[in-house]
Amino acid sequence: MSLVRVHNFSVSLDGYGTGEGQRLEEPFGHAGHRLHEWFFATRTFRRMQGEEGGETGVDDAMARTWGEGIGAEIMGRNKFGPQRGPWEDHAWQGWWGAEPPFHTPVFVLTHHPRPDLEMAGGTTFHFLDAAPQEALRRARQAAGGLDVRLGGGPTMVREFLAADLVDHLHVVVVPILLGRGEPLWDGLEGLEQRFRIESVTSPSGVTHLTFTRP
Amino acid sequence: MSLVRVHNFSVSLDGYGTGEGQRLEEPFGHAGHRLHEWFFATRTFRRMQGEEGGETGVDDAMARTWGEGIGAEIMGRNKFGPQRGPWEDHAWQGWWGAEPPFHTPVFVLTHHPRPDLEMAGGTTFHFLDAAPQEALRRARQAAGGLDVRLGGGPTMVREFLAADLVDHLHVVVVPILLGRGEPLWDGLEGLEQRFRIESVTSPSGVTHLTFTRP
Repeated sequence: MSLVRVHNFSVSLDGYGTGEGQRLEEPFGHAGHRLHEWFFATRTFRRMQGEEGGETGVDDAMARTWGEGIGAEIMGRNKFGPQRGPWEDHAWQGWWGAEPPFHTPVFVLTHHPRPDLEMAGGTTFHFLDAAPQEALRRARQAAGGLDVRLGGGPTMVREFLAADLVDHLHVVVVPILLGRGEPLWDGLEGLEQRFRIESVTSPSGVTHLTFTRP
Repeated sequence: MSLVRVHNFSVSLDGYGTGEGQRLEEPFGHAGHRLHEWFFATRTFRRMQGEEGGETGVDDAMARTWGEGIGAEIMGRNKFGPQRGPWEDHAWQGWWGAEPPFHTPVFVLTHHPRPDLEMAGGTTFHFLDAAPQEALRRARQAAGGLDVRLGGGPTMVREFLAADLVDHLHVVVVPILLGRGEPLWDGLEGLEQRFRIESVTSPSGVTHLTFTRP
């Protein structure tokens, strides 16, 4: 059976996966880049950007399994773009330029579906108004036996966790206090009982937590 | 200048320093002992109980500085006992038996003062209806040049952090999700900017964070 995986999901010490006030200039709202500085420094991220260099320590080791064995991604609409409500037009093609780093089918959960969007490099965005179970069924179908990655944001990861659909959760606790934004942990009391949890800190100051099925 | 220190302060991954529903049989409410299992296993805790044994690894190393150089403690009333509102009588003498492990003056913050309570072993409880600054002034006076420890619970630690009165904060993140209880981090956006923060995980699965003045 293919697994459902979450990777490189940063949260602040007070549990916010993104800040308040997402907009075109601030995809993570008032959090800015602070939740992802550890990731931007890695070789894994640099390669996703088509760049060289980057560190290859603990953070990179944790980050690099992101793409291995993944056949499809599911993401929330707020990860796809800053728009809310009905689409005014279909000009927006995501934050990632002409060749997004996914290279698989990507299912965007939205109450406002729009036509499929085929990008360079193997990424096709499908827009889906569906509950987690149905979205996962569609993504698994598209993944051809490979794993399905949940790309975030916090709300959709939380919904999939609440529905007990996640097999591997990699959370990165960044020691900052955002104070406001989208919480990851709300409504998940007792989550730890369904998982085996390991933790490791890295020299960048973040703590990597992995939740895996026991 | 004497420092204001917080030690061994456990929070769940979702930021609760104690559970919901504190009562005589459950000092930490529905959290039970889950926030403090790492601490109970240490030699430091065993010694506080007058017992032998206990582990002497990372958790113990982090726990043991608890009492060093401390001349007074300030604690919230809910740490002292499960009662709320006016005291029905003065029979309650805290959770710790005839000889509490503090061995210094302890200032209990409460809107309902009562007479001083002198216990065996050097602990005297003073009951004080005061704001953080005034409580700290009193505690410093009693500490004779030594440091002052803030004993919790979450609400009083949060108030002292908000007033920027804390010099050393040792928080232990336990990978459980309580879902409800007393939050530590609320209203502290940007706290990290006032501190130098280090993290280390231990084999017990918890992450120790130290916030110190840069």
